[in-house]
Amino acid sequence: MSSILLGSIEAGGTKFVCAVGDMDFKVQEQTSFPTGDPEETMKKVIDFFSAYDISAIAIGSFGPVDIDPHSENYGKILATPKLEWRGFDILSALKKYFDLPIYLTTDVNASAFGEYTMGAAKDANSCVYFTVGTGIGGGVIQNGEFIGGLTHLEMGHTFVKRHPDDIDFEGVCPYHGADCLEGAASGPSLQARTGLRGETVTEEHDVWDIEAYYIAQLALNTRLNFAPEKIIFGGGVMQQEHLMSKVRSIFTELNNGYVEVPPLEDYIVNPAIPENGSATVGNFALALRELNK
Amino acid sequence: MSSILLGSIEAGGTKFVCAVGDMDFKVQEQTSFPTGDPEETMKKVIDFFSAYDISAIAIGSFGPVDIDPHSENYGKILATPKLEWRGFDILSALKKYFDLPIYLTTDVNASAFGEYTMGAAKDANSCVYFTVGTGIGGGVIQNGEFIGGLTHLEMGHTFVKRHPDDIDFEGVCPYHGADCLEGAASGPSLQARTGLRGETVTEEHDVWDIEAYYIAQLALNTRLNFAPEKIIFGGGVMQQEHLMSKVRSIFTELNNGYVEVPPLEDYIVNPAIPENGSATVGNFALALRELNK
Repeated sequence: MSSILLGSIEAGGTKFVCAVGDMDFKVQEQTSFPTGDPEETMKKVIDFFSAYDISAIAIGSFGPVDIDPHSENYGKILATPKLEWRGFDILSALKKYFDLPIYLTTDVNASAFGEYTMGAAKDANSCVYFTVGTGIGGGVIQNGEFIGGLTHLEMGHTFVKRHPDDIDFEGVCPYHGADCLEGAASGPSLQARTGLRGETVTEEHDVWDIEAYYIAQLALNTRLNFAPEKIIFGGGVMQQEHLMSKVRSIFTELNNGYVEVPPLEDYIVNPAIPENGSATVGNFALALRELNK
Repeated sequence: MSSILLGSIEAGGTKFVCAVGDMDFKVQEQTSFPTGDPEETMKKVIDFFSAYDISAIAIGSFGPVDIDPHSENYGKILATPKLEWRGFDILSALKKYFDLPIYLTTDVNASAFGEYTMGAAKDANSCVYFTVGTGIGGGVIQNGEFIGGLTHLEMGHTFVKRHPDDIDFEGVCPYHGADCLEGAASGPSLQARTGLRGETVTEEHDVWDIEAYYIAQLALNTRLNFAPEKIIFGGGVMQQEHLMSKVRSIFTELNNGYVEVPPLEDYIVNPAIPENGSATVGNFALALRELNK
């Protein structure tokens, strides 16, 4: 058993990360490359894994992607703005080369599963994982199962209350302007407001109060909608501790004593798996689960 | 087997409905009475069921209520504004008289389970049920299980975008003003805006556009947060067909072509079980499930 190797594909919109891991979900080998067109990208993926005797693979993909095994479009990337990927069947492209159990889910579901298995939610029965970066997305796990019936979730496009000082901002979501979280609080929204890339905006800038107001609403709505045991925020925007503490403090203001919560330092947290490794660990665990089915 | 009888207790904040049903979840006998203090109310409940040879009971209770069997407060009504019920252990009060399997959940979970079993979601694997009345609450089912890890959900207190013509409304939620759905769109909010009880406000009144705007956001956020196969709206406020069609039409505007949805007449619907019977059917089904455990 100790020789079993598992494969992880983190198929992001800008970057692919492929990894081979062992039964302890430790990375043995890893590679990453920019996301090109489907053919060249998948060729790199296949070349990488061909060098190993892999027993199962899991893919955490950018979306929208059809992850319903009962659907006729199962495995296909759907209406993404990356036109060359639209309609591409990422699952079949792999199955052609690897006659193995292959599990497909979303990138945020994979990260959620990693944190649930070995990270911030390892002692919990439920968690919600968000990424706040170029986009905003979330994955939800309860008792080991992902939430999502009709298709995967699109939590980044939920509507929230506009910050009183942000009423005139036009937002960056092509569908919802600044009405949805992705339009009002994704990385590009920070840039649209300040003219600066998020990581270069100083801690003192007022935009962080606005950002924290939206993320705090997301956290509060998540507590009310799912009552998860942990709420985890990953992604580039959330890596700043000053932002996390603002989020916790505005959460408390907005909740106004209504709903009970654990101490927020333990409840609204960053990922515990270092080096953006949540999705890779999650994929290893999902690949193993698929193998054991 | 055909002689087995099941008990349903719909423990509402203003009214209790107790029913005895058969294995087909048909009501054999039913009674209802206003919610008084815990002692007199539970005496009526116990008197009613004592006349039957019941095999199992399910309770759908107003909240907040501790429905976690692993919690030390399991069975207790929590921080309700109904002070005499605060801390009352509704489950133990019943167990003292009935040595039976007794299942406890929230009122909206019971209604959701009824619609999932025999109502609007009977052919679905997932659904979300909302009540919009004196308060706003929701229950979520996926693959037969309720969503909610830490405790039951409080979806009525989620924050949404304020209607542009409703910015100055103070709202009716003692915790969140008009920021949360219960503050902005519950029955009492209609009365606060118009001075009229909801059922007497004419179809032409502008307040319905505001109401529909909030309910449409709730429906859209629900589609994005849970991707359920059905979204069901019960409760007094939602019984008007003109409101449901406004909600569907604003949902389409707000979504702006982003997320795929089934035809909305089949997706955003009223309960299919007549005469407010969803919770009773749900309780029968939950009592039977508890009996079969």
